[in-house]
Amino acid sequence: MRRADSLLCVGLDPHLARVPAHLRDRRPRDAIVRFNGALIEATRDLVCAYKPNLGFYAAYGLEGISALVETRRLIPSEIPVILDCKVGDIGSTAAAYARGYFEEWEFDAVTAHPYLGEDSLAPFLAYRDRGVIVLCKTSNPGGGDLQDLVVRGDPETADEPLYLALAERAAGWEARYPASVGLVVGATYPEQLARVRARCPDLPILLPGVGTQEGDLAAAIAAGIDGGGEGLIVTSSRAVIYAGDGTDFAARARTVASNLRNQVNVLRR
Amino acid sequence: MRRADSLLCVGLDPHLARVPAHLRDRRPRDAIVRFNGALIEATRDLVCAYKPNLGFYAAYGLEGISALVETRRLIPSEIPVILDCKVGDIGSTAAAYARGYFEEWEFDAVTAHPYLGEDSLAPFLAYRDRGVIVLCKTSNPGGGDLQDLVVRGDPETADEPLYLALAERAAGWEARYPASVGLVVGATYPEQLARVRARCPDLPILLPGVGTQEGDLAAAIAAGIDGGGEGLIVTSSRAVIYAGDGTDFAARARTVASNLRNQVNVLRR
Repeated sequence: MRRADSLLCVGLDPHLARVPAHLRDRRPRDAIVRFNGALIEATRDLVCAYKPNLGFYAAYGLEGISALVETRRLIPSEIPVILDCKVGDIGSTAAAYARGYFEEWEFDAVTAHPYLGEDSLAPFLAYRDRGVIVLCKTSNPGGGDLQDLVVRGDPETADEPLYLALAERAAGWEARYPASVGLVVGATYPEQLARVRARCPDLPILLPGVGTQEGDLAAAIAAGIDGGGEGLIVTSSRAVIYAGDGTDFAARARTVASNLRNQVNVLRR
Repeated sequence: MRRADSLLCVGLDPHLARVPAHLRDRRPRDAIVRFNGALIEATRDLVCAYKPNLGFYAAYGLEGISALVETRRLIPSEIPVILDCKVGDIGSTAAAYARGYFEEWEFDAVTAHPYLGEDSLAPFLAYRDRGVIVLCKTSNPGGGDLQDLVVRGDPETADEPLYLALAERAAGWEARYPASVGLVVGATYPEQLARVRARCPDLPILLPGVGTQEGDLAAAIAAGIDGGGEGLIVTSSRAVIYAGDGTDFAARARTVASNLRNQVNVLRR
């Protein structure tokens, strides 16, 4: 964030049908690597992190996974890379995922599901200098199906929505484990974001839903920024990476990324 | 289940350090494919399904993913293969995963996280002749951290644990979408399994935690079996696949699998 004076995180989510035509006639792996490589080259001084979503790579089978591994290699080592894999499994399996994502593939952070509880996250939380960003209040319309259910408190605590009960637990994990803990809260829910920030003043919050997902950026920054004007990882994918579809797509992506970074910087100060 | 007269599902979760020594000197991909291939050949007439867990393959990077794809090809087409990927993402990303897992890699069912709500599962639920097995009450010690929280009911329904509120929703998805819906309930929690079965009389339940996880098999079968003596997918991984570590490992795996299948058949009738 300080190196680039930026809270912007670019989501590298390639969809071959939307990749510029002059790249599309290659093998899927090569098209994705060329696309991502150009985007990284054009935006690397503007971002605090990159975030490839595993799903967009798995969709192309082995070719896609190979492109993901190569994409990670193309990102300069001073920029953290968040694998948006929404992992969540138990025991030795969780340990296997952690080894794969943190050691084999060398990602700096992962996104993770909380539904299986603390012991499912522990193998990831055991890594010092890595991040575990836990899904809390997501940006999609149906996110509230479970997350907004009101759960009964202890005799001493009030009833509250599940997403807040989860935020409370995440703050405890941050205190007790070597890894850094963050939360995912959608920009589409600024009121709930403010409640999470009040509960967890020091946790970084990954903020998707900016850009094509129609979140109100100003409301989200006001609600989620921490006391130091940081603490939000403002994520945009499609609005940046598909800003253009011609041979100048990377330059257009840079323009959108630069504008979004500057807009956030004005709002957070 | 009827073809093999079996509720047994073998989890194909390779861990190279535990693969028999005579296979271990090969490349990771080849060691895993040889290991899985021998296990499939030795148990294919005894199982209702196989269930590879994505984490054990991702742990070996591209080599591992390649072994997963090849393992799927080695399984005869009449046997369903459940990819235990515990997927859970939103919108176009969920659609990308569904395309990858169901179309590119040709799995018959997936396991899925419910935390992001119905719209995150909808792209999977849209596939007729595929299965979506939703995490409900998991077998790990910390499973209750969120799953056992008591959520407030409507004015007309009682307060109940989150896992039961989720089971209720899953029954609705089964009714409204083309895909088949199942639930994951750990064999380690027979009382909660009985509550899920009472709430969802017709949903198949994937039952991990049998074998090395120390579930009480008899109690779990009694609690979870449906009215027709079916409805449970009894999953065992380590107890079967690591039954031996010599050149006769596949024959030993067959013996354990056969005993477990027969034990379940006695208990369910």
